[in-house]
Amino acid sequence: MPFHFVIADSTDSFCEYFGVISLNKGRQRHQASSPLSAGFAEESQQRFLAELSVFVRFPTVSAQPKHAEDLKSCAAWLARHLQRAGLQRVRIISTPGHPIVYAEWLDAPGKPTVLIYGHYDVQPAEPFAEWRTPPFEPTVIGDDLFGRGACDDKGQMFAHVKAMETCLKRQGRLPVNVKCLFEGEEEIGSPNLKPFVERNRRQLAADVAVISDTKMLAADQPALTYALRGALSFELEVGGQKSDLHSGNFGGTVHNPLQALCEIISKLHDANRRIAIPGFYDSVRRWGDAEREFMVSNGPSDQQILREAKADRGWGERGYSLYERTTIRPSLSVTGVTGGYQGEGVKAVIPSRATAKLNFRLVPDQDPAEIERLFRQHIARITPPTVRTTLRGFLDARPALIDRRHPVMRAAARAYEHGFGVSPVFLRSGGTIPIVDHFQELLGAPTALMGFALPDDRIHAPNEKFHLPNFYRGIATGIRFLAEVGASAEEIRR
Amino acid sequence: MPFHFVIADSTDSFCEYFGVISLNKGRQRHQASSPLSAGFAEESQQRFLAELSVFVRFPTVSAQPKHAEDLKSCAAWLARHLQRAGLQRVRIISTPGHPIVYAEWLDAPGKPTVLIYGHYDVQPAEPFAEWRTPPFEPTVIGDDLFGRGACDDKGQMFAHVKAMETCLKRQGRLPVNVKCLFEGEEEIGSPNLKPFVERNRRQLAADVAVISDTKMLAADQPALTYALRGALSFELEVGGQKSDLHSGNFGGTVHNPLQALCEIISKLHDANRRIAIPGFYDSVRRWGDAEREFMVSNGPSDQQILREAKADRGWGERGYSLYERTTIRPSLSVTGVTGGYQGEGVKAVIPSRATAKLNFRLVPDQDPAEIERLFRQHIARITPPTVRTTLRGFLDARPALIDRRHPVMRAAARAYEHGFGVSPVFLRSGGTIPIVDHFQELLGAPTALMGFALPDDRIHAPNEKFHLPNFYRGIATGIRFLAEVGASAEEIRR
Repeated sequence: MPFHFVIADSTDSFCEYFGVISLNKGRQRHQASSPLSAGFAEESQQRFLAELSVFVRFPTVSAQPKHAEDLKSCAAWLARHLQRAGLQRVRIISTPGHPIVYAEWLDAPGKPTVLIYGHYDVQPAEPFAEWRTPPFEPTVIGDDLFGRGACDDKGQMFAHVKAMETCLKRQGRLPVNVKCLFEGEEEIGSPNLKPFVERNRRQLAADVAVISDTKMLAADQPALTYALRGALSFELEVGGQKSDLHSGNFGGTVHNPLQALCEIISKLHDANRRIAIPGFYDSVRRWGDAEREFMVSNGPSDQQILREAKADRGWGERGYSLYERTTIRPSLSVTGVTGGYQGEGVKAVIPSRATAKLNFRLVPDQDPAEIERLFRQHIARITPPTVRTTLRGFLDARPALIDRRHPVMRAAARAYEHGFGVSPVFLRSGGTIPIVDHFQELLGAPTALMGFALPDDRIHAPNEKFHLPNFYRGIATGIRFLAEVGASAEEIRR
Repeated sequence: MPFHFVIADSTDSFCEYFGVISLNKGRQRHQASSPLSAGFAEESQQRFLAELSVFVRFPTVSAQPKHAEDLKSCAAWLARHLQRAGLQRVRIISTPGHPIVYAEWLDAPGKPTVLIYGHYDVQPAEPFAEWRTPPFEPTVIGDDLFGRGACDDKGQMFAHVKAMETCLKRQGRLPVNVKCLFEGEEEIGSPNLKPFVERNRRQLAADVAVISDTKMLAADQPALTYALRGALSFELEVGGQKSDLHSGNFGGTVHNPLQALCEIISKLHDANRRIAIPGFYDSVRRWGDAEREFMVSNGPSDQQILREAKADRGWGERGYSLYERTTIRPSLSVTGVTGGYQGEGVKAVIPSRATAKLNFRLVPDQDPAEIERLFRQHIARITPPTVRTTLRGFLDARPALIDRRHPVMRAAARAYEHGFGVSPVFLRSGGTIPIVDHFQELLGAPTALMGFALPDDRIHAPNEKFHLPNFYRGIATGIRFLAEVGASAEEIRR
């Protein structure tokens, strides 16, 4: 799809270096390598892209201990970058896991304080063989930057960094107070950020928060996300006899742990494709017609979701649209199974153990601790006496809901109108950003989830990319968001 | 368990360098490094062990294409070795897969011809992390040689090579005619050996065959195997949506191929732990009381099998002992499942596909082609409309039965009595040696399955080993077997 980039006149002082991007006016083909009419904007874009590429190059896979040093190096790079951008009191905060990078700019007395959150860690890049370009060698193809984390979340968070830098370099100031909190453990459930926020409520106090780590509805339709699902992850191990056995000599005499694992997994959903854990749905909030109608008119259709999923047909809980199944209904996904022989060809073996990775997504008002209790009970109940099961918890995050009518949402909507030329729709997301619920609960700060990701950006999958026009539009939107929050001081601080 | 090795007087000319090993006479502790009373025997043993170690060092994993050159090198080494041992017309026969090594010695006119079969390929060594010594760095610990293939089948087939060498070097001749057929594809179902045997019936003509690739009942109880199960292997792939998806954004909307795979696998056995493929048991031969009683009195007990399997409890088809379940009843083992994220920690992904490796073991009178047809039908029937399945066949071998009363069995029994000091029991094996049925069908040669493997040798599993006293006893047994067949010329050729 060709990208159309229009540089128009603008009187917005915070935006003069990017221009107003309008999707509704005369369009002009953008080519990454061709000079644009506004010389400085083009120059900045080139530099910003080069910097983002450096950022994406760090293989910051938080789930894999071998990358711990890469996360440290990336945090150090990011901290230096924030310092050079003009932010103050930049700090790298070590944790029992990966470091948090903090920075602030608080020289706008009387103005609201915006907490800008992002994460510099990324999902594992596996399976490597399916990447067309190496995941940690960011590559521009057409209008896209390919690389693990290019979109989730390095590119999106970096748009805010560049927005602040632009304001600070040109104006010497920001229109609001800002606190930046960039973590390296989002993809593993933010285990150390939560206690950090808890311990530092006063220092982190903010009026509103903004996070760009969500999707737009389509390339020409930005979206403000007002609901996130929670998450709960486990590794389930099934153990049988003490060592691997020859499947000829022993096939038929012991309960193969791999078979037992499949049998257990097959019992986690019932015939109606509902999660078959007794009590699992007890605290799932039921939404009235008004909300469900709002979702129909704002959200994607089944067809859109299937197209985005590259799936021929849907599946799931009866009585709900696909959009509802991913947002107001919980889910349980098997995200990995390993057992027995993984190589080419055949090996005649009955493995001694097998493991599965399982990922729940929870909705209001499910409590992760309660769901964990029910799940452990259920696994114990369905484990046959011929094998043993063990469950290891990995991640838990509460679902989050943000009031669509809060002034920060209006500020974000106006910023989108400015940056993308159209008003955003209000969407629920099936994904999870663990800290959003905490910002709300601990700091009392509602979060504007202002995403710049396209539905086809393949986050978490091979060939993840970030649509570069959205990077530049995201910067413009970020600049405008700060201005809009600054201009809404009274409403917001009320 | 200490090994007792007794060197006694012997008048058997083919056996003078090994001595008669008797388990029933006065015992003496054997230590691999201590000198034995018979200087030459000790010297030979050291050399034979050194040679076997060279043989085991070749990583001849036939299932893995990356090892193709290793199989070639090993075949060349083996051919040179046979030549030096005094065998004639040694040939390396290339095939579309891995080479066959052939050698013969036909200077015993009027004597029977013995076809000696073995395989120099091995099972994959995975999972590597579970090996206490590197799988392809053969290591002697106590009385055992550890290494992939040390027992299955390099050590066992090498005993026959050393038996022939000993006879040829000392006597200048063998007591029978011999044809050696050593292949490199047994572990992948002998796809190229079968057509080779078919095409070369005349050149391979033999009165009897001998294969050492089976287990003894216990360290002090050798066994002649008279039945083998057949085998049939598949890779089952389940495909869903076209690319991996984020389990937050899409969890609950598509049928996760990994979940669908588990659901399909869970439907391959019924509640009675029978294989749930319609028609699967139709041609399974039912055995009368006499045979089942023979099995009870000769075969291992449930307790012995569980101990050997290191399993706390049995599992499988009701109405049959564990020994029966592995021999006269068919089985289906899931030998591997791969799908989704395999690394450490978590990754929130719904994989686009998942695969399982499946291994059937078949019994008389099941026909692999018919079972494959039934299985493909069944998979098509149980595949839900939300995913696609594909089946790839890998290996098929017919079950085999050998007449316990054939004179080659008596010759083998006497050889065991000589080499191990006790008469063998007659056992069925749950394993498969694809070529045995072909030797019987195409060459009319019954096979003496004269195994030297111990139940705890961990074939196909990590830390495979060969019990070295069985290597030396195997050589003595092999020498005596040739002599016994030579002495039974009339009975055997009748």
